[in-house]
Amino acid sequence: MKVLIVHCHPEPKSFNAALTDTAIETLEHAGHEVLVSDLYAEEFEPVEGPGRYATRREPSYFQALDEQRWHYEGDALAADVSREIARLKWAQTVIFQFPLWWHGVPAMLKGWFDRVFVYGGLYTGSRRFDRGPLSGRRALCSVTTGAPEATFGPLGRSGDIATLMWPLHCSLYYVGLSVLVPQLTYGVQGGGLSYQQEAGFRAHLEKEKMRWATRVQTLSEERPIPMSGWADWNEAGVLKNDHPLRWRI
Amino acid sequence: MKVLIVHCHPEPKSFNAALTDTAIETLEHAGHEVLVSDLYAEEFEPVEGPGRYATRREPSYFQALDEQRWHYEGDALAADVSREIARLKWAQTVIFQFPLWWHGVPAMLKGWFDRVFVYGGLYTGSRRFDRGPLSGRRALCSVTTGAPEATFGPLGRSGDIATLMWPLHCSLYYVGLSVLVPQLTYGVQGGGLSYQQEAGFRAHLEKEKMRWATRVQTLSEERPIPMSGWADWNEAGVLKNDHPLRWRI
Repeated sequence: MKVLIVHCHPEPKSFNAALTDTAIETLEHAGHEVLVSDLYAEEFEPVEGPGRYATRREPSYFQALDEQRWHYEGDALAADVSREIARLKWAQTVIFQFPLWWHGVPAMLKGWFDRVFVYGGLYTGSRRFDRGPLSGRRALCSVTTGAPEATFGPLGRSGDIATLMWPLHCSLYYVGLSVLVPQLTYGVQGGGLSYQQEAGFRAHLEKEKMRWATRVQTLSEERPIPMSGWADWNEAGVLKNDHPLRWRI
Repeated sequence: MKVLIVHCHPEPKSFNAALTDTAIETLEHAGHEVLVSDLYAEEFEPVEGPGRYATRREPSYFQALDEQRWHYEGDALAADVSREIARLKWAQTVIFQFPLWWHGVPAMLKGWFDRVFVYGGLYTGSRRFDRGPLSGRRALCSVTTGAPEATFGPLGRSGDIATLMWPLHCSLYYVGLSVLVPQLTYGVQGGGLSYQQEAGFRAHLEKEKMRWATRVQTLSEERPIPMSGWADWNEAGVLKNDHPLRWRI
């Protein structure tokens, strides 16, 4: 199995970094190939905008999707975007490792989606969702949170975690990826080096590393989250009126 | 009324820019004061990380929340972050104007949250949600989408818009803001200058500008989205067992 890990955390000694290291070691030990996109270390540029294009299809009016398609078709995308697309097309499984910041991905990772999921390349009008260019591949988000697990339940004040993850899962599925259940590591407090050296932190880290390593070993056997697809929708892009899912409660 | 508009779009002639201009004109005409944070024009730096701090509380280990609190308490935050916090504290209403990119805010705006909503300043352990430092103020997201409205219904393939907006609304409420129903402008296609000059585009733009101007005139009378708060939660941060909302269907 070929696995791409898109790693997004600014601190190389972080809990997130330890989870990425765990995944690399476990996967390579089992004979899989692993590539890592370490967005902070590679100084990925997250802002989609005119500054990303040396030449322009339309110099007097910036429209991201038009520029993306034109540059993709002309094989003229920025080097970092081309590299990420090549990694995605190489991979059979993509793991996203990041901390939950403000109920979603850090800006660095959001910008990876804004720039790398190019129109004309990773999706077009007719090649999206289950017909997307990356269909047949899998994706999984491994997420750390500061707040404890109880607060992420349906009635918890942090917000239901399934709902918080849903926009991101929609984006992954949009380009064709099958989405696995996220790996959730709750209650990861920062607290600096001194806190990191405390017994409680170390015990939490070791427990979560082991839980993650155990799961990573059997990733290829997991069933993805069910999603509706082209065959389920009417012309307006809505679940068909006679679809059985309309009766699911 | 003092209104801050956080505007996030790379193109000054865009549909989003026209909506922001509409809000400014309408509000100022009615005697309100308006400030605009134009994130692309001001070249806001969205990446939270060690590069944002000239000095460090903990030089050998980067932990965003610790650095934020330390710099806030020492009045040593980056100039752009201090400026945005001052604008937020000045405002009674905050409008976010942005296009929906990959089921959420553009990276530029996500980074505004990552950096400006500082720990120790805009929230602490006991000052969050309805007790947050910005309580008594209101926020509203004005969002353009490329896909048509039907696909954003509960059974549409773009994803239910209420669910897509929810993580962002959670973030706004976390610092104390009351959240108004979003202004949704569907089916905004880019297509460059030539498309912009077409009659259909112009008609759509004029219609949406008028709809937005009409709403902006009575913003202060709107009821915010109901949210549970400290009095509703138990010690674990979950809705109390005997809470009436547990019986709502």
